[in-house]
Amino acid sequence: MKKKKIRVFAPASIANLGCGFDVMGLALDEVGDILEISVDDGDGLEIRNESGVPLPEDPELNVVTPVIRKFLEITGNKAMVRVRICQKIYPGSGIGSSSASSAAAAYGMNELFGCPLGEEEVVLCAMEGENLASGGYHADNAAPAVMGGIILIRGYEPLDLVKLPVPGNFYCAVVHPHLTVNTKEARNILPREVPMHAAIRQWGNVGGLVAGLYSGNIGLIGRAMEDHVAEPYRKAFIPGFDELRAALMQAGALAMNIAGSGPSVFALADRQDIAQKAGNLMDAHFRSRGIDAEVYVVKVSNKGAKLIA
Amino acid sequence: MKKKKIRVFAPASIANLGCGFDVMGLALDEVGDILEISVDDGDGLEIRNESGVPLPEDPELNVVTPVIRKFLEITGNKAMVRVRICQKIYPGSGIGSSSASSAAAAYGMNELFGCPLGEEEVVLCAMEGENLASGGYHADNAAPAVMGGIILIRGYEPLDLVKLPVPGNFYCAVVHPHLTVNTKEARNILPREVPMHAAIRQWGNVGGLVAGLYSGNIGLIGRAMEDHVAEPYRKAFIPGFDELRAALMQAGALAMNIAGSGPSVFALADRQDIAQKAGNLMDAHFRSRGIDAEVYVVKVSNKGAKLIA
Repeated sequence: MKKKKIRVFAPASIANLGCGFDVMGLALDEVGDILEISVDDGDGLEIRNESGVPLPEDPELNVVTPVIRKFLEITGNKAMVRVRICQKIYPGSGIGSSSASSAAAAYGMNELFGCPLGEEEVVLCAMEGENLASGGYHADNAAPAVMGGIILIRGYEPLDLVKLPVPGNFYCAVVHPHLTVNTKEARNILPREVPMHAAIRQWGNVGGLVAGLYSGNIGLIGRAMEDHVAEPYRKAFIPGFDELRAALMQAGALAMNIAGSGPSVFALADRQDIAQKAGNLMDAHFRSRGIDAEVYVVKVSNKGAKLIA
Repeated sequence: MKKKKIRVFAPASIANLGCGFDVMGLALDEVGDILEISVDDGDGLEIRNESGVPLPEDPELNVVTPVIRKFLEITGNKAMVRVRICQKIYPGSGIGSSSASSAAAAYGMNELFGCPLGEEEVVLCAMEGENLASGGYHADNAAPAVMGGIILIRGYEPLDLVKLPVPGNFYCAVVHPHLTVNTKEARNILPREVPMHAAIRQWGNVGGLVAGLYSGNIGLIGRAMEDHVAEPYRKAFIPGFDELRAALMQAGALAMNIAGSGPSVFALADRQDIAQKAGNLMDAHFRSRGIDAEVYVVKVSNKGAKLIA
């Protein structure tokens, strides 16, 4: 094997999208992880973290490890793999930190070996990282991080992914308040059963959101984002949640919801200036409560993982 | 008021569409109810049933009564209304018998008074009949019976209806086995809570079905129709349900599900000959068990309630 080296970017992502609990996710523009991956003769894995973000030193605890092993296993390859983590979203932010690294690793390995896997199989590899991070094979961050855009996970047995159309002017303001919410903890707060009436409202909304995306009906998208299943429980982790939403809706946002299992919160808007205003309000909301926060105001990206120079 | 008289047709419909429990419904071509409605000076309601199908004689028990009262109330009109029920789907068939009459009454009244109500308000009037028949304000039969095509009920507060695209070649075989299943009873068999994992699969499927309809992806539509919420309970009312489905899928049907709360069962196909074959299999299935059945093989209709000569 000739030694080969690439750099890969994979975007941050927002899982759930309000009503689409566990079945939808969206890729963000610009924000994401950068990995440098090289393969050579031999057999082994070396991970170096140069991102400045604290990560577990033990490769057994790093999400890229099971991703790379899965790729080598299903493609029947053996290699000495070296990964340099150059840029990293802060873990626990709720915008798909583990998925961005997992997606970059899966996409990068596939590129290095001449693309033996299709897109859905690359997602399946990336889901191994999700499993290590959160104890479950979820694709709602991993799929958009690999494929870009807005992805519907129709089902898992087998994995059935649908890339939904993204309206032309679709902006997202995301705030990451510095509160750590553990994904497992955020899952455990949810009940195991959903009242039938809430479940019906939820799937009416999922249908409405998909219809809104196909028809470009921005009003319908906004109305359909409401989450009757996870948000009523998880918003307890986020100080002043209802108040913040009221302010953002007042400012013209289409919707505000928790990103993934939180604590990040995002708002959608069909105008960049409204998204920017929403971002400012989010920042001020947390800072006034003594909580540091990062804010991103970006377009929804149709591009997922990609090679970079 | 000058005496006016019209004839109205409203189609049979199939509620739930597999995964879309309580939020989706589809209108059938050709099959439906015909009402003759006249209005004159005065104040009162007279109903004559000439359909040959047994119906309650008491107007207080006929679904058109609350529909007509609601229409007069919200439009602020008063009239002597006479309704002749000329053609009627057999009640308890599960293909929207009460909704077809309710939709015809609501649509007809609106036409007679110069269309003061928009389509969603006409549906709201028709839902009064649903409430009398089944004890709930459901729109999953009433909306397609008024509007035609495939309707998503995004939400009820307020009523938010989305007309979804219907693929060009979209055929439906419906069998009405002569078993009476009471709508209230069929609702009572359902649990009040849904396990989270089943609910997630259900809204993944609703999203997939809507995406399949917009993109014309017939395979996706078929995969997405699966119902994890109502069918596991309600199929107990239908002898040999699983066996019948296996035979229909073998014959090339996209999906087979219970129509509304049953006992009718329907299959979708993208070819008329497959739908016809499915209809024949359905008929044979019930007759071999000593159960009489009617079978309809029709296109999915984009047309809802309409005036006829």
